Amino acid sequence: MDLLKQKILTEGEVLDGGVLKVDNFLNHRLDIEFLNEVGLYFNDKFKNAGVNKIITIESSGIAIATITAQYLHVPVVFVKKNVHINLPDDVYIENVQSFTQKKDNKLVIAKKFINKGDKILILDDFLAKGNALNALINMVEKAGANIVGIGIVIEKVFQGGGDRIRERGFDVYSLAKIKSMENNHIVFED
Amino acid sequence: MDLLKQKILTEGEVLDGGVLKVDNFLNHRLDIEFLNEVGLYFNDKFKNAGVNKIITIESSGIAIATITAQYLHVPVVFVKKNVHINLPDDVYIENVQSFTQKKDNKLVIAKKFINKGDKILILDDFLAKGNALNALINMVEKAGANIVGIGIVIEKVFQGGGDRIRERGFDVYSLAKIKSMENNHIVFED
Repeated sequence: MDLLKQKILTEGEVLDGGVLKVDNFLNHRLDIEFLNEVGLYFNDKFKNAGVNKIITIESSGIAIATITAQYLHVPVVFVKKNVHINLPDDVYIENVQSFTQKKDNKLVIAKKFINKGDKILILDDFLAKGNALNALINMVEKAGANIVGIGIVIEKVFQGGGDRIRERGFDVYSLAKIKSMENNHIVFED
Repeated sequence: MDLLKQKILTEGEVLDGGVLKVDNFLNHRLDIEFLNEVGLYFNDKFKNAGVNKIITIESSGIAIATITAQYLHVPVVFVKKNVHINLPDDVYIENVQSFTQKKDNKLVIAKKFINKGDKILILDDFLAKGNALNALINMVEKAGANIVGIGIVIEKVFQGGGDRIRERGFDVYSLAKIKSMENNHIVFED
């Protein structure tokens, strides 16, 4: 997606430790006109996949999932992080090491919102080491639901998460793939 | 908003301590067709207010803000909770007691995303005691920006937050106002 690559180059900022800061359009300030283009790309890719539900992870995935859901005419369920749980029997929980936050996150989703036979599209803003995405796939599989697509806005290929997920047998569709960010120089794949 | 009241009555669940659980359409699963109606209501109310930016609080406010922003053609900035701060000079921070989570939250917004003279529409899913909304108003005022509207999906009038904000001189537009929830019986105002 050329517009995305352009925005990464002009508005993104490479921080220490392999962090790409894109808070001007994706993570803090949301450029809605741009995210609408992202939604169109995901719709175009997944419109014939039979999706009946989009699952994403709070918070930055929610805007992308919401816009894509408008095109696909399906509901969104967002996985919560670190919520206080009263009734663990009612939820799936996975512990995940966060790449950017240097701490463990507990991912939580109510069992009633993933059903056997669901055809789920997973969407998220970033794919780095793939810990959160792996955990989310585990939850969907525990529920006996099917993953019919995985869409990512920015994949940092050099951190290996995409390979890990593809090795599990899933197709990952990323709108921008970053091959390296050495010396603050962003190089895209392809 | 009649559709919202209907959904609260049929899908909402009153929990102990004045908590209204609406995770089937607003807080965990997002009913996008319904949220689109919410966005239309907010657009209709605020389209002539000169809004140039919507501010909301992660996570449940993001979907509503995103959809409303599509109609108003403005960006969204979402306030973050409890993020690790490297550069406190670059952000506004407010500590807030959360009603549902029984703990303190740190609300954080980058200074660069609220500018003097901005005409800001604040949107959020719930208004209970008003702690988070009060903190958000403080941040906007510190930045010298103007609040041209406040839109809430569900106001729990009996918890007093709306009165508190209105006493500060702000008009609060709530799509459903709940007067009481005693004995699991939801009574709306008007």
